[in-house]
Amino acid sequence: MKELRVELKENSYPIYIGSGLLSQKELLIKHIKSKQVLIVTNVTVAPYYLSFLQKSLVEFQVDTIELLDGEQYKNLENINKIFDHLLENKYSRNATLIALGGGVVGDMGGFAAACYQRGIPFIQIPTTVLAQVDSSVGGKTGVNHPLGKNMIGAFYQPQCVIADMDVLDTLDDRQLIAGIAEVIKYGLIRDLEFFEWLEKNIGLLLARNKDALAYVIERSCLNKAEVVVEDEFESGIRATLNLGHTFGHAIETGMGYGTYLHGEAVAIGICYAADLSKRMGWITNDDMERIIALLKLAQLPVSPPKGMNVTQFLDLMAVDKKNVDGKIRLILLESIGKATLPVSVDQLLLEQTLNNYAG
Amino acid sequence: MKELRVELKENSYPIYIGSGLLSQKELLIKHIKSKQVLIVTNVTVAPYYLSFLQKSLVEFQVDTIELLDGEQYKNLENINKIFDHLLENKYSRNATLIALGGGVVGDMGGFAAACYQRGIPFIQIPTTVLAQVDSSVGGKTGVNHPLGKNMIGAFYQPQCVIADMDVLDTLDDRQLIAGIAEVIKYGLIRDLEFFEWLEKNIGLLLARNKDALAYVIERSCLNKAEVVVEDEFESGIRATLNLGHTFGHAIETGMGYGTYLHGEAVAIGICYAADLSKRMGWITNDDMERIIALLKLAQLPVSPPKGMNVTQFLDLMAVDKKNVDGKIRLILLESIGKATLPVSVDQLLLEQTLNNYAG
Repeated sequence: MKELRVELKENSYPIYIGSGLLSQKELLIKHIKSKQVLIVTNVTVAPYYLSFLQKSLVEFQVDTIELLDGEQYKNLENINKIFDHLLENKYSRNATLIALGGGVVGDMGGFAAACYQRGIPFIQIPTTVLAQVDSSVGGKTGVNHPLGKNMIGAFYQPQCVIADMDVLDTLDDRQLIAGIAEVIKYGLIRDLEFFEWLEKNIGLLLARNKDALAYVIERSCLNKAEVVVEDEFESGIRATLNLGHTFGHAIETGMGYGTYLHGEAVAIGICYAADLSKRMGWITNDDMERIIALLKLAQLPVSPPKGMNVTQFLDLMAVDKKNVDGKIRLILLESIGKATLPVSVDQLLLEQTLNNYAG
Repeated sequence: MKELRVELKENSYPIYIGSGLLSQKELLIKHIKSKQVLIVTNVTVAPYYLSFLQKSLVEFQVDTIELLDGEQYKNLENINKIFDHLLENKYSRNATLIALGGGVVGDMGGFAAACYQRGIPFIQIPTTVLAQVDSSVGGKTGVNHPLGKNMIGAFYQPQCVIADMDVLDTLDDRQLIAGIAEVIKYGLIRDLEFFEWLEKNIGLLLARNKDALAYVIERSCLNKAEVVVEDEFESGIRATLNLGHTFGHAIETGMGYGTYLHGEAVAIGICYAADLSKRMGWITNDDMERIIALLKLAQLPVSPPKGMNVTQFLDLMAVDKKNVDGKIRLILLESIGKATLPVSVDQLLLEQTLNNYAG
């Protein structure tokens, strides 16, 4: 087992990465300072892994809430169901919430924990590649709004993150591949060496080679933790983690939440961001081709979504957390391995990129 | 004008107290770092004071949302309306939200600001005594749930608090009096001298004497700020501000939000807390009579709510933010001027108090 630490003063916490962690009762319960525990999970994950937690928690007062599976359920209505459950069962402010699932479960569980009685402790047990390499680390929690992805939420750090690689055995290929989009992102924004490793070894990941997966999860978490420690509340460098996300979020919202998986939308978004970076004169044609080649090797989508026009993109991109005074700002690439901070771009170039990729 | 500071490191902010502050444009706009401003207010306050803000903000992009007036509207549904408005009008993360109103508007505006895009700046302009002496200071924001008062929320500090005493001229007597309950609370929990001043001068407050009101607002804010600075996230001493609130919240929830004003429910709650403190052997009969006498002089209610029985009280008190592992803990009085930290109490004594006051 590897242990990384996210150093955020009184909000510091460990990330555990390894095999068989869900069976290690002590790992979990040393982070629980209460009798009352609520497990938030979903109907896909529960049949496989809920019993592991229940076995570890026999001495606690444990309830479970199973959400439906998918981005389309990540909304305030379902957060409210978690609040109902907590209140009906008289959960106190020292209770612990455990989020067992992918990014949607983690974001919602974390946000419910952030708001219930103005904050109760919570633990992330991510069960997808995407959640293990990205969303479970760093304290971004929240839900979608019909008009914008992740628009309602809180920065709220967990007590710990337990990334058990064994749970990926039951993850379907589409989910596995979607997670790789965020992995490639780390290479692009700040880790050229990792990008080059991925170019050589992407096949091992798709074949679910355990050593390769372990390496990728650890290196991604290291990248994520370094950025979060430097800028917890995203006043600067943390925004670089958003490469491809402005376009990607527009796709997710525009096509209807759940049509594309988040990672798939990010992969397409990275293509838009690379195209615009090229038009800005920053990356070369060769860089652009290298990026698209790796995304294709990873079997990620690189084509624009069918049916979204330029106006719709611009409209959706006008609500993004990086914008200032309503003006669009984007993360672009200066080179492979180096992202920009949020930049305003020439409207004409942006429209050229959107037209180039119009669905 | 008086200026107090709430010192919370990077979240520090000033409280301005005085007359004519709403006409002082510079005071407001020096705290706004954006073009986009959303004013959250209610239908009672807007006709009187909205135009003052609009005059100060002619150079900004300003929208207003007017909520209905009352505790029964302090819920997630109305928070969602604020989110809808922010997103429909494409508000960015650097936008400023101004809460212009009493405790309900301040709590909701603050919570919406805390969650929109994971946090945008906000300003408190309290327009009731209760909001000026208590709820606008200290960063507690949130909404009610059908099963419990203030159960959903966030600790989120404003950029500044502007307490213009002139707005109290249009406050009706019932609201004025309700605010005095929180003022008396400060005397009870930590400021004997203030309690004694109130015993002598309560008549001046009810007669709306400006000097007396100014003194009371300032001294209350000083008390509040000292406690908040010591314990921002209520892991200890801050809970003493909750004297009477466990009973009071049960009354508000049990009788239906809006039946009693918050301050009225707190006044009754203080009677319960004093009765129980007496049964614990801490305060004397004389103390108890002194407390009730002052509440009566202030024209606050001291009788139990009609129709709530002991079981209902116990059930509602079982969800309270001070509870641990589902067990009730209360703030009681060691003497006039000194509150306890949260304490577990003998169930029998608690039931005696509840029976004594049963409606």
